[in-house]
Amino acid sequence: MKEGIKIVTIGGGSSYTPELIEGFIKRYDELPVKELWLVDIEKGREKLEIVSNLARRMVKKANIDMKIYSTLDRREALKDADFVTTQFRVGQLDARIKDEKIPLSHGLIGQETNGAGGLFKALRTIPVILDIIKDIQELCSDAWLINFTNPAGIVSEAVFRYTNFKRYIGLCNVPIGMKNNLAKLLEVDPSRIDMDFAGLNHMVYGLNVKLDGEDITGESIVKYIEGNITMKNIKDIEFNKEFIKALGVIPCPYHRYYYKSADMLKSELEEFKEGTIRGQVVKKLEEELFELYKDETLDIKPPQLEKRGGAYYSDAACNLINSIYNNKKDIQVVNTLNNGAISDFKDDEVVEVSCVITKEGPRPISMGYLPTAISGLVRQIKSFELLAAKAAVTGDYDTAYLALCINPLTSSDDVAKIVFDELIDAHSEYLIKK
Amino acid sequence: MKEGIKIVTIGGGSSYTPELIEGFIKRYDELPVKELWLVDIEKGREKLEIVSNLARRMVKKANIDMKIYSTLDRREALKDADFVTTQFRVGQLDARIKDEKIPLSHGLIGQETNGAGGLFKALRTIPVILDIIKDIQELCSDAWLINFTNPAGIVSEAVFRYTNFKRYIGLCNVPIGMKNNLAKLLEVDPSRIDMDFAGLNHMVYGLNVKLDGEDITGESIVKYIEGNITMKNIKDIEFNKEFIKALGVIPCPYHRYYYKSADMLKSELEEFKEGTIRGQVVKKLEEELFELYKDETLDIKPPQLEKRGGAYYSDAACNLINSIYNNKKDIQVVNTLNNGAISDFKDDEVVEVSCVITKEGPRPISMGYLPTAISGLVRQIKSFELLAAKAAVTGDYDTAYLALCINPLTSSDDVAKIVFDELIDAHSEYLIKK
Amino acid sequence: MKEGIKIVTIGGGSSYTPELIEGFIKRYDELPVKELWLVDIEKGREKLEIVSNLARRMVKKANIDMKIYSTLDRREALKDADFVTTQFRVGQLDARIKDEKIPLSHGLIGQETNGAGGLFKALRTIPVILDIIKDIQELCSDAWLINFTNPAGIVSEAVFRYTNFKRYIGLCNVPIGMKNNLAKLLEVDPSRIDMDFAGLNHMVYGLNVKLDGEDITGESIVKYIEGNITMKNIKDIEFNKEFIKALGVIPCPYHRYYYKSADMLKSELEEFKEGTIRGQVVKKLEEELFELYKDETLDIKPPQLEKRGGAYYSDAACNLINSIYNNKKDIQVVNTLNNGAISDFKDDEVVEVSCVITKEGPRPISMGYLPTAISGLVRQIKSFELLAAKAAVTGDYDTAYLALCINPLTSSDDVAKIVFDELIDAHSEYLIKK
Amino acid sequence: MKEGIKIVTIGGGSSYTPELIEGFIKRYDELPVKELWLVDIEKGREKLEIVSNLARRMVKKANIDMKIYSTLDRREALKDADFVTTQFRVGQLDARIKDEKIPLSHGLIGQETNGAGGLFKALRTIPVILDIIKDIQELCSDAWLINFTNPAGIVSEAVFRYTNFKRYIGLCNVPIGMKNNLAKLLEVDPSRIDMDFAGLNHMVYGLNVKLDGEDITGESIVKYIEGNITMKNIKDIEFNKEFIKALGVIPCPYHRYYYKSADMLKSELEEFKEGTIRGQVVKKLEEELFELYKDETLDIKPPQLEKRGGAYYSDAACNLINSIYNNKKDIQVVNTLNNGAISDFKDDEVVEVSCVITKEGPRPISMGYLPTAISGLVRQIKSFELLAAKAAVTGDYDTAYLALCINPLTSSDDVAKIVFDELIDAHSEYLIKK
Repeated sequence: MKEGIKIVTIGGGSSYTPELIEGFIKRYDELPVKELWLVDIEKGREKLEIVSNLARRMVKKANIDMKIYSTLDRREALKDADFVTTQFRVGQLDARIKDEKIPLSHGLIGQETNGAGGLFKALRTIPVILDIIKDIQELCSDAWLINFTNPAGIVSEAVFRYTNFKRYIGLCNVPIGMKNNLAKLLEVDPSRIDMDFAGLNHMVYGLNVKLDGEDITGESIVKYIEGNITMKNIKDIEFNKEFIKALGVIPCPYHRYYYKSADMLKSELEEFKEGTIRGQVVKKLEEELFELYKDETLDIKPPQLEKRGGAYYSDAACNLINSIYNNKKDIQVVNTLNNGAISDFKDDEVVEVSCVITKEGPRPISMGYLPTAISGLVRQIKSFELLAAKAAVTGDYDTAYLALCINPLTSSDDVAKIVFDELIDAHSEYLIKK
Repeated sequence: MKEGIKIVTIGGGSSYTPELIEGFIKRYDELPVKELWLVDIEKGREKLEIVSNLARRMVKKANIDMKIYSTLDRREALKDADFVTTQFRVGQLDARIKDEKIPLSHGLIGQETNGAGGLFKALRTIPVILDIIKDIQELCSDAWLINFTNPAGIVSEAVFRYTNFKRYIGLCNVPIGMKNNLAKLLEVDPSRIDMDFAGLNHMVYGLNVKLDGEDITGESIVKYIEGNITMKNIKDIEFNKEFIKALGVIPCPYHRYYYKSADMLKSELEEFKEGTIRGQVVKKLEEELFELYKDETLDIKPPQLEKRGGAYYSDAACNLINSIYNNKKDIQVVNTLNNGAISDFKDDEVVEVSCVITKEGPRPISMGYLPTAISGLVRQIKSFELLAAKAAVTGDYDTAYLALCINPLTSSDDVAKIVFDELIDAHSEYLIKK
Repeated sequence: MKEGIKIVTIGGGSSYTPELIEGFIKRYDELPVKELWLVDIEKGREKLEIVSNLARRMVKKANIDMKIYSTLDRREALKDADFVTTQFRVGQLDARIKDEKIPLSHGLIGQETNGAGGLFKALRTIPVILDIIKDIQELCSDAWLINFTNPAGIVSEAVFRYTNFKRYIGLCNVPIGMKNNLAKLLEVDPSRIDMDFAGLNHMVYGLNVKLDGEDITGESIVKYIEGNITMKNIKDIEFNKEFIKALGVIPCPYHRYYYKSADMLKSELEEFKEGTIRGQVVKKLEEELFELYKDETLDIKPPQLEKRGGAYYSDAACNLINSIYNNKKDIQVVNTLNNGAISDFKDDEVVEVSCVITKEGPRPISMGYLPTAISGLVRQIKSFELLAAKAAVTGDYDTAYLALCINPLTSSDDVAKIVFDELIDAHSEYLIKK
Repeated sequence: MKEGIKIVTIGGGSSYTPELIEGFIKRYDELPVKELWLVDIEKGREKLEIVSNLARRMVKKANIDMKIYSTLDRREALKDADFVTTQFRVGQLDARIKDEKIPLSHGLIGQETNGAGGLFKALRTIPVILDIIKDIQELCSDAWLINFTNPAGIVSEAVFRYTNFKRYIGLCNVPIGMKNNLAKLLEVDPSRIDMDFAGLNHMVYGLNVKLDGEDITGESIVKYIEGNITMKNIKDIEFNKEFIKALGVIPCPYHRYYYKSADMLKSELEEFKEGTIRGQVVKKLEEELFELYKDETLDIKPPQLEKRGGAYYSDAACNLINSIYNNKKDIQVVNTLNNGAISDFKDDEVVEVSCVITKEGPRPISMGYLPTAISGLVRQIKSFELLAAKAAVTGDYDTAYLALCINPLTSSDDVAKIVFDELIDAHSEYLIKK
């Protein structure tokens, strides 16, 4: 590999970017990023400038030789890149707010990456990702694409199924967050914990927890339920303790939408009435963050960023890039082709699973069959993901509506039709035509 | 095989029995049933007598040499039987009414074979079936057990997984009903229709419809939706046409509980308020039927029986017994070991699938993978069935509660706990202790 | 379907054709073949005329309305055909003799459809079959192609893997011969025997033998070994009785090449020395047959044809066509996509297996996993078939040589290279170039 | 874990033991073995004493606190052990010589771990291993059993299939030898090479070779063939270069018996005539080695041991124990349950595959499907292994003979019977009776 690393971050104007910068600065010795290109679109020009300037101040303070570029010209940025990360939102937060409000207005859960909202986010996002991949294949075909853009599971399925690009990894901060939060509850350093993760994006389970190599799964589950871990994005309604004990594995925060759908819906409907649904809250937080970022004396990641929900985002992305670059062969959790790892899935389906990370990409660890109690739900979500990916790539809205009808958060095919039609209207500028 | 056939019907006092009698009478030439033993328990003594007497009058009128026995001594009846059929209800209709009311009282669907109701019906029924199998293995080990007792899917899973008895077939009148109703809508004789059935009990789909061997699936789906076929048991709320067209296969009537759960719940809650839930309706119908049956001039199956919901019950059971007896090798739909038939399921899981019926039992036809849109839901229900069967056999109520929590009709683990505890209480006399 | 059936037989000048004619005559009432087109190539012009004239005399004697056409113009013949059968030999018997002699000259088994000979027959045949399929797709896309041309297993794999033509069935007279011969040994009518066939072409096993529906597998195996059933093509060296009893299934005649490879090789080497290898014997038989066929007083299938080795050829082909035409849904053994039927194979691999025959083609019966003792060998042959099919389609001779090296009849990669190079030379006019 | 490690080596009198001692000495800092118990049987008493004394001198020279015990009382030794290693030979070298001579005398390959010889080694060895496991489960149930005793593949299959002992690992020095030898040919340090191993014991392939993380598979194959790597045990007849290039993976030395069976047989028959078959050679080598070991001035592993064939034996065993003890999570190649790792095998079959080594044992890395060209042969050997393991556990000699008949090194079921009967006679004292 050539001297120094060139990284391109698409959606560089994101409020999360300072997380990334901090991560690269911390790892500079073993991961010498010489060029970091922040790319955004015209609508994000102002945010891009604010973030880029903050990034430059952070790098300067760290006194390292990393050059920050900002540009609206994606193709210029991609040329000869080593790693590309993506973290954009087609239609910005306004689109997210629609994804939340429209289902809720008809009594369905409105959520960014699950149910109707997740479907439409996929329909808007996947065509853009496929365009980026075309550019990568032309301009930097040896680069790795690390995709953080949600819904990461469906996006990953679309990439592996409908392109011939292999150097793609779907990444999410949920597993690393679960592990780190569990370590906190157990009051031990996360490095002493080994655990398996298996399932799908935003539908991943933690299994076989070990402390210094010894199994502590049972007590971990108890601690985890008592700790009631969630994420900033997700209301912290408690799982039923007896249920999770019987389940025998650790659910992820998003599982609340499935195992407690009535409770979550009720809570969301209250927020909807009060005008405090997540998209609205985030929009306000973002505005506050960007006010902070503008401060020319700020030269570190501001602590307020944590409220935004991106905990461990930096660790997830930077550790992955580091392990690829240095062929570390450590274990991380990513979205990649199943290739036999989880026996419940076909070899060519995408899963989120613990992998050995090598210079040639992730190598899943064999999990065998999942416990019976969780196998069915992940298979159902995979059916949804497969149809959603197909609809996003083909622009076939019959398939998209079918995907919505079979989603477990949909409780009526008729209501689904109304919600579907309204979302099609609301997002029409971002949807491809068949 | 010895001269003449001996059949034992457990739950012989059922109001459905005249269906069976009529079926055997019609087929007497090729299926010479010489002895039909109707068995029931003490609580059903009166009904058993009424039904047996009607059966005797029917046989007499048909002028055939079939002897009707009625007894409360199951073991006496089983001796050297050729076929055993089961059609009983542990706890009678009162138990069913509890299975419906208790979930409804907490806002969950209350249904005989689905959700919480189905789970508790399994918990009550499976221990009795396993007892019957022990008797069969001792007293008539070459007999075939044709089980009509619901929830037939979970019962079948329990039998194949937890006993070494192989001559078991789970049977349901749903597929034959779907095919016959479709033929009516198409205005053709059912014998001209071939179609595949694949899935699980009360969760079976019709695929690849052919008329005189030529594919007519597309137009069949349209006719089927327009015809809005249901069963007496299930409210005839219409499926969304665009949804089913996109689905590309024919759902069974019970799929309404999954694809229209909110609509079905709403409708059930109204019936609950009005005191007209299905169990209550059936109880009244049964009383009326038995009044009819008592009439000593009645010597045929009374037409009113059709309202009860057992359409094609007789055809399903008698055709199956006939094809086994005569090694007919025709195609019928039964619950049996998957053995590779549906690639979405493991070889040792029970499925409901089109089979060639031979003297040595059903041989499934290979279906390959199910369409993506239906694969996930059937896998989820199979997870539920596996846990329900395990709980019923072991008496482990943590597993039973876990089964309820992962059932797609459950929308809250906490509400599920309340419903579960109430049902445990309500049915305690019929539940085994670990 | 239009009035009357049009059948096209490619390789119509084959000595087997009178078998086919006899079959169609016998079944004329339910299978009214109005036109039978016999097609051959220039080199076969004389034989084609002889056979066509015999066919016309047979039809005349039978006094039915079936018109026999003979032509060298394949495309003219195919127009609007209902069924196409193929039974040709690229390079005629001289090519077969090379396939036998060249391996033998280096100490390897030389056989028409197995080992090096089978590989080169595949390399010569598959390109022609793919050409025929292109013509069918253009001229009679609703026709069924019934392929009898060997090596039928590899040809079938090539068709399903490398074309999008679905109305293809690979057919062989081995299974029907095994069943009929077993019935003879048991002294019962074949119609009373049911048995499963599963495996690959010329590597198929008989399992679960039933007489009038009752299992008689054990005694059938004993009878079968004692009867030492073989085919005209294959030296009747006896299987070891204790081996086959332990195996628990009935091998096909060709299994001698695998379970007794040393014995078969020894026997072949003797024939090689004596100039009586099978190709040479057949060539002489064929000449005698055609002398008979020329006799203008002959108007039936001459009994001498049976020595040629095509016993039950007619029954296999005509029964299959009959069941498709009349949507009979009886069980026959064909080469088709596995689709889950045999759990040891992938869904998209071709197997030879018992199927329900419908108007829309064969539907395999689920066999589950094969017995351990036979699973490995069939998998090994499938590996060979997959590489052979790929080599035949692509013209990649590295892949062809690889196929030969992994074939179990090859005992040295170096000897294989010599044999391979000589066969490439010997058949160069019939091999495609990459 | 308690302070210091206790290791028990069954078959401690083996000439290989000094390899182990050296390995433990080298790793003492991170793997503090405090007690090493060498166990043997009465027949091995003298060798055990010689080896134990050498071990004591080696430890003394190394100046570490490791106590060497030698005993004939296995149960005394096992008490509270942390690791048990096995490296014994039931019937000693005389049994091996019979395993080689008897097949050769009838024209079949006679080899220690393959074909007839491997089968009988399995039949003698497995009952002893199962006895040891019973002792372990009673006396040190948390210990790991690292089995080096051949045929390691069949032994491992028997342990996982027929016991409930989970802390078993089958180990072989072939993969580590292949990697180290390849590194020598490439003139790089082995630590810079990553490669996958997948297959079965003594039938393992090397795939996806990487140098510093970059793929070099193609050039590695060329180097490997040119280098003609073998083992001391196996005649170095060259693979055909064009074959291996087309194969696309690196075969193990034992593959010569399959891809070059005629050549290997010829070579073995010559040795047989000359009285230099491997067992005879090894016997002489062993005698020489023990003469050396007796030398009281010897306090290191003598270099002559390498001729014996155990290269990397020490590294394989000690690295594995070290990684378990220290939860290293590095990648090593072992025999363990497939659990989905290689899609060609069932989850409950044993494979030899690259694994992440943790304190709780090996975790296979997902390999997906093997290349077509190698899939069939490994499946065939697995069929043999499954039957051999079953025969060894049950003492059913019909199954054992069946295993021999389906082994690819058997070329005649009749010859196999003669060989089988002679081997049964020859080894009768070591074989269990049903």
